[in-house]
Amino acid sequence: MKKLINLPENFEKEMLEGITAAHKGKVKLLEANDRVLVSEYPAIEGKVGIVTGGGSGHLPVFLGYVGQGLLDACAVGNVFASPSAQTMADAIRAADRGNGVLCLYGNYGGDCLNFDMACEIADMEDIETKTVLVADDVASSPQETSEKRRGVAGMVYAFKIAGAAAESGMTLEEVAEVTQRALCSIRTMGVAMTPCIVPRVGEPGFSIAEDEIEIGMGIHGEKGISVEKMMTADAVAEKILRAIEDDMPLLPGDEISVMINGLGGTPLEEQYIVYRAVDHILKERGIDIVMPHIGEFATSMEMAGISVTIFKLDEETKKLLQKTARSPFYTNYNK
Amino acid sequence: MKKLINLPENFEKEMLEGITAAHKGKVKLLEANDRVLVSEYPAIEGKVGIVTGGGSGHLPVFLGYVGQGLLDACAVGNVFASPSAQTMADAIRAADRGNGVLCLYGNYGGDCLNFDMACEIADMEDIETKTVLVADDVASSPQETSEKRRGVAGMVYAFKIAGAAAESGMTLEEVAEVTQRALCSIRTMGVAMTPCIVPRVGEPGFSIAEDEIEIGMGIHGEKGISVEKMMTADAVAEKILRAIEDDMPLLPGDEISVMINGLGGTPLEEQYIVYRAVDHILKERGIDIVMPHIGEFATSMEMAGISVTIFKLDEETKKLLQKTARSPFYTNYNK
Repeated sequence: MKKLINLPENFEKEMLEGITAAHKGKVKLLEANDRVLVSEYPAIEGKVGIVTGGGSGHLPVFLGYVGQGLLDACAVGNVFASPSAQTMADAIRAADRGNGVLCLYGNYGGDCLNFDMACEIADMEDIETKTVLVADDVASSPQETSEKRRGVAGMVYAFKIAGAAAESGMTLEEVAEVTQRALCSIRTMGVAMTPCIVPRVGEPGFSIAEDEIEIGMGIHGEKGISVEKMMTADAVAEKILRAIEDDMPLLPGDEISVMINGLGGTPLEEQYIVYRAVDHILKERGIDIVMPHIGEFATSMEMAGISVTIFKLDEETKKLLQKTARSPFYTNYNK
Repeated sequence: MKKLINLPENFEKEMLEGITAAHKGKVKLLEANDRVLVSEYPAIEGKVGIVTGGGSGHLPVFLGYVGQGLLDACAVGNVFASPSAQTMADAIRAADRGNGVLCLYGNYGGDCLNFDMACEIADMEDIETKTVLVADDVASSPQETSEKRRGVAGMVYAFKIAGAAAESGMTLEEVAEVTQRALCSIRTMGVAMTPCIVPRVGEPGFSIAEDEIEIGMGIHGEKGISVEKMMTADAVAEKILRAIEDDMPLLPGDEISVMINGLGGTPLEEQYIVYRAVDHILKERGIDIVMPHIGEFATSMEMAGISVTIFKLDEETKKLLQKTARSPFYTNYNK
């Protein structure tokens, strides 16, 4: 295992120490729980809190979006493992400014179970919470059972929308409503070319042959919908767009944002070559692209591969997407 | 070769098409030369131009730093190959606002030769130029022959300083002087765990055994100073800092910036674990760290590995480092 780490069991702790040392004054760990990262950026009085949580190994997801106009707090689990309900409850408490907290996280069994418990704990302390689940991966379940879908890179758009909505003074109900509406128009699919290694395990959990690519693979290495011979960037773009559009058709005149997300081991050059293909296909059909995101937003450590996310915008979500936001890992500053 | 590309010979062209499609209104290619990327951000009237150039395969280096408070133009070569003198001359012309152009690039044979010719062409057209070479890689030559050193991730700091200096209204001579002074206080060393593949070649140019790490390797796979058994992140940090300090001692009270640069295939988590080690070692000795940079700034496509850069600051270079800057790939917005 060629990882630049120390003891595998210290992976999360040391990563968090590195992050908080590097970004002092911007984010910090709670004194009472060193698995909760909270924002130290200025925030508007009485703002609705936005909280997420999930396993480590996906940087910048999840904790990288703790910042201004984004998340207030994040519960940090071990690599690919859910944080505890207690840690989530601590994150909710830290994010509450008296007007409630939105819990916004990926649709995984452990996270759902633990966040449900955390919300019950918060409820006993008279902190109002609402939950919005991210389930954007079209490859993970057919449309009829879309409630079973996993949350992947589309959650970054959801964080951005919820954060901007809260920052603009909306109530908890309004923030939840607009975030849910945004998510109804967000779809993602990914492909993988190599596996990744959980530090504590020390070896890949699966393999992909030297001439093959797995279509629809999840960000923890969950099985995709097919294993195919390695194909061109253009073919990958086409295949992903077709799968997304089977689920959410796009029409001429639609305004969308596109995220090309590198899974960790895929060079930025290749991400732009995939973006080029997506841009070609969509613009030729009269679809407008607003604020494309190209880079590593939700990774699987050293996994090679990419995902493409399409976010169909309406007037309100477009404005929220474009609002200024910043964290140590994400900046939207387009003035 | 598992790359998300189309024809290898279209790698650079398609990457550039992706970048200009994604970042319309921010950067564009010259109509007369589609290997010159120029900034479309607002710039101060009569500002000194800052130009760089070099081979592709290192994104965000080089072209990713074309922006505001950074570079005005970049000459783009094929993967790991120098752009032509004519392309460099086109970049110089595009960057000139009547007060001269600084050519700021890595110390590689082909780039030096071609930029020298480009400056002669510019001179015949009465465009004043000055040249500052980046030669920050301490592993590439001993101190007695430090003029032979290669330019690596330290060039990102040099771009930032030169861009901020030009933006603040300095003359060409002043911009060159402060950039050169900054570079005299910038040192880098890297380690690599896996090779990378030039698309046109289709296979790795070298190999590193499954249990080994190469110390001091260059960003094109140039041989390092030793091949050692795989070691911990803490040991790597110590080894690199020792090599840098043998060359440029650090004292308690010094203010420095640190860049942990992922070479492409190394997860962000690991970069932060290395940052943690560097931060520990230096802060214990009373050295202050300002504006640390952790991420992928100068890569070798899919190569796994990292480099550490130390930039010893004085009052002026610290101010210039902290000035606002933005490009599609780099934002410093710390207000």
